[in-house]
Amino acid sequence: MSTWKSEALKAKTILQASIPKEWLLPEDKLPPSDQRNVVDFPKASGLFTDRELSITDMSATALVAGMGAGLLSAEEVVVAFLKRAVLGHQLLNFATEFMADTAIARAKELDAYYQRTGKLVGPLHGVPISVKEHIGIKDLTCNGGYVAWVNDIAPEDALILQCLRKAGAIFHVRTNQPQSLMHLCCSNNLTGTTTNPYNRTLTPGGSSGGEGASMGFKCAPLGIGTDIGGSIRAPAAFCNAYGLRPTMRRNPCSGIKAPEPGQEAILGVVGPLAAQSLDDLELFQRAVLDAEPWDIETSLVPLPWRRVKENREFTVGIMWEDGTVRPHPPVTRALQTAKSKLQAAGIKVVDWEAYKHSHGWDIISKLYFPDTASSQKALLSQTNEPTLPLTKWAFSYAHPTPLSISEAWALNVARDEYRDEYHARMKAAGVDFILCPAYVGVAPMLSEAQYWNYTAVWNVLDLPAVVFPSGMAVEERDIGVDVDWVARNEVEEREWRKWRVDPGRFVGAPVGLQVVGRHFKDEETIAAAKVVEEAVRGLEEKAKL
Amino acid sequence: MSTWKSEALKAKTILQASIPKEWLLPEDKLPPSDQRNVVDFPKASGLFTDRELSITDMSATALVAGMGAGLLSAEEVVVAFLKRAVLGHQLLNFATEFMADTAIARAKELDAYYQRTGKLVGPLHGVPISVKEHIGIKDLTCNGGYVAWVNDIAPEDALILQCLRKAGAIFHVRTNQPQSLMHLCCSNNLTGTTTNPYNRTLTPGGSSGGEGASMGFKCAPLGIGTDIGGSIRAPAAFCNAYGLRPTMRRNPCSGIKAPEPGQEAILGVVGPLAAQSLDDLELFQRAVLDAEPWDIETSLVPLPWRRVKENREFTVGIMWEDGTVRPHPPVTRALQTAKSKLQAAGIKVVDWEAYKHSHGWDIISKLYFPDTASSQKALLSQTNEPTLPLTKWAFSYAHPTPLSISEAWALNVARDEYRDEYHARMKAAGVDFILCPAYVGVAPMLSEAQYWNYTAVWNVLDLPAVVFPSGMAVEERDIGVDVDWVARNEVEEREWRKWRVDPGRFVGAPVGLQVVGRHFKDEETIAAAKVVEEAVRGLEEKAKL
Repeated sequence: MSTWKSEALKAKTILQASIPKEWLLPEDKLPPSDQRNVVDFPKASGLFTDRELSITDMSATALVAGMGAGLLSAEEVVVAFLKRAVLGHQLLNFATEFMADTAIARAKELDAYYQRTGKLVGPLHGVPISVKEHIGIKDLTCNGGYVAWVNDIAPEDALILQCLRKAGAIFHVRTNQPQSLMHLCCSNNLTGTTTNPYNRTLTPGGSSGGEGASMGFKCAPLGIGTDIGGSIRAPAAFCNAYGLRPTMRRNPCSGIKAPEPGQEAILGVVGPLAAQSLDDLELFQRAVLDAEPWDIETSLVPLPWRRVKENREFTVGIMWEDGTVRPHPPVTRALQTAKSKLQAAGIKVVDWEAYKHSHGWDIISKLYFPDTASSQKALLSQTNEPTLPLTKWAFSYAHPTPLSISEAWALNVARDEYRDEYHARMKAAGVDFILCPAYVGVAPMLSEAQYWNYTAVWNVLDLPAVVFPSGMAVEERDIGVDVDWVARNEVEEREWRKWRVDPGRFVGAPVGLQVVGRHFKDEETIAAAKVVEEAVRGLEEKAKL
Repeated sequence: MSTWKSEALKAKTILQASIPKEWLLPEDKLPPSDQRNVVDFPKASGLFTDRELSITDMSATALVAGMGAGLLSAEEVVVAFLKRAVLGHQLLNFATEFMADTAIARAKELDAYYQRTGKLVGPLHGVPISVKEHIGIKDLTCNGGYVAWVNDIAPEDALILQCLRKAGAIFHVRTNQPQSLMHLCCSNNLTGTTTNPYNRTLTPGGSSGGEGASMGFKCAPLGIGTDIGGSIRAPAAFCNAYGLRPTMRRNPCSGIKAPEPGQEAILGVVGPLAAQSLDDLELFQRAVLDAEPWDIETSLVPLPWRRVKENREFTVGIMWEDGTVRPHPPVTRALQTAKSKLQAAGIKVVDWEAYKHSHGWDIISKLYFPDTASSQKALLSQTNEPTLPLTKWAFSYAHPTPLSISEAWALNVARDEYRDEYHARMKAAGVDFILCPAYVGVAPMLSEAQYWNYTAVWNVLDLPAVVFPSGMAVEERDIGVDVDWVARNEVEEREWRKWRVDPGRFVGAPVGLQVVGRHFKDEETIAAAKVVEEAVRGLEEKAKL
């Protein structure tokens, strides 16, 4: 066995040892491996009591309310989600490590506290949260998707986990991520490839792909991902879930392991994914910021999470396409439906033309790897682990020679000018929020996610962006859609080939949409997304799903 | 004449042409050139009416109140300050350009507005503000201290000027800065050397040295400077004035000309100096932030200026020295006096030991010129203007070879860790504010300001810092102070030599002190500085000065 394989095996060993064996379903009871959609399997599996099924269908907000009313115990909640996560892992390979014992022990503590005081410890009392692997947990390994880091032990909990734990959260499972953390898919040489619960031949997205699967299969009501180009939002969109990319410097990043520490031209952010509701994203954010993380991580902006009033007096600009790649038919149909429903609901809607998004991509793609990705490549060559195709793809963005300091400064200037211009145009057009695709299509086939700019442009602009499920999915009628245009460029040609070659591959895949707000207006953006979601899906329809 | 001289002459020509000749005092009526202290000369000059003298002794706050009550006109106010600025320029060479006509025209507009409506246009109605030259003013040249830029015309007003103008401010004079903007002195090859009104053989400080002189001679109640290592605070301290270095990303920097655009590891900040009071610093800040500059310059943090309650329940840590260079005797005496007076006033005082300030200097000095100062050197060599000694001194901080991107990242990490550690130590010690020297001594001799770290350390830490006059100045008794220690290092030896060689050179020079607060707590820092100033000087004593 080559060195990298024996090293990589350590990650698999940790994972295997951590799985609570009592909840494993025997192989022969699992759905056939060619069954694509497994989201309804928990019910069919016979593993869960009705109560467990209904617990795992609850939002974090509802779970906390239930525990506050004494109707649920933290222990039964975490056990239900742990069981579901074990099954999810058998079907989707989304976990990197279970933490069943500590999770259950913590739940018991919380229950005892509630018994003793009649109070909850905090706003996330007893809420199980899945955690992307590179977010460090004290005394556990933290490999960040690199074999070279397989032996690294986190010296303490990442600061965001400390904040959430103080609010009562329980961390029960750690989740998978791609090599380099720079794929919108989820494969690495450590614990392999995670798949999409709505269609196991598709990717759950990335880089927070394990979180996408966790949300889509309801292995937790909340998850924590990171996002430097779409890594929270693509998984949320692909897996029928919710996700927030907050404005930079709001959520604490201390204790999150990644190459390029000190790179601050484009900061990765950490933020929530949610299985059930936008309210849960807000619950998460409030808990984090109420802990005042800026009092420890001083580079954060000391801006508490604000309560904003429900408001429907805003203008939504619908961005139909980004000027480079028109979205696939199901996405356009979802936007068209959204437009009619918003209008029917009395929300002001206008068209929003993408402003220089390819320029934005040009800036951010150069800023990702100004050192030719040498930090990342050095990690790969330390063990000679194979460089996966989408890692090569990501590294291909890098300039072939290292940027000089002054070249990097020029990109910062271009970035800031682009931000100012974009903001000025939104203001001039009276557009408060942009409704747009979260990706060129629905979840792509494994290893085919190559086009980032429906999400990455909001990273270079540093605008808060929320993904929510449109309630729509790919249908037969999308397949017949013919378009009477010729691809404008090779990228559009490439991305449409993926759809046209066999659209049937995507049937059933959900369509997520993205609401983008203004810099530091994270609160308003979630609030607007709630209004949009309610208009687009209708409350009843949502209840039905 | 060599090229650079003919180019440089353009700046002198602009300056000369702009001086309102009617207010020039004939050469033979000026004090002798060897008269060091000229702060009382306005009264002796016979140029000013009593009313003009009292106007130029008023704070911005008082002026606005006077105009609001109809007791003063904006025109008489700006004329009084213009006259004083012209005299100040004759004595101190602090201006780079007068804007008398536009200032008076604007004052007349404001008076007409007040006549018509009975209202002020804003909180700075009619307040004359002097402006450091590299802060761009539409259609005027903006040379930033470089001969190479002598022909550059600003396309529009710097954003901060737009904010202030909207609030009613009037810009009547532009002020001098050193070559490279990186001296704590004020000499360039364009308009020469500015001197200190309290002692014309000393520097007014830098790089906002023209502003220091402007405040010290009361050529304006408020001024605008910039600060990346002490450039607002050193001039304030050396010239018996007030100055604020705000937290980064609060005040807008668009339209300020300097080399290294896009350098953001250590951001220069723009902020106010004031001749009369800390209240004026606050007045300035509120006017700027009430204009919501973040709605144009989106890299700013959208944090309105907060009103904080008067509060005396805080702990002041007195930092006697920084671990590298002990301050000169007058500064130590001022700190000792301050300590007793704070204790007498019932303010809690503890000692604060400087925490790794030399480490902080190590980080920031490398981050100033990570490209070996090549941007700056290229500007100098464009015209072959001579490189001044303190420019060479500043460039000597630069690493001899350009830092790589990853070396720069490592410094960012070190910076953030240092910030977090420093904050944690202040919290652990219960220290809310630090009272410390603003410089190793009082204003140094021209070209002798070499030690930056009593101010620069707060730049690397990004803490808001306020300078105020201690009310004390160098006295004969300081000269006799003997110290029984041996210099700990060459830097201390060098800095003390400057004092010991002839302390009499500094008699009469004022001592400024510095109050440092927590990140983004600019409001609280000014509020605390008010309490400290009141305790240290006493209201009566202050009124007397």
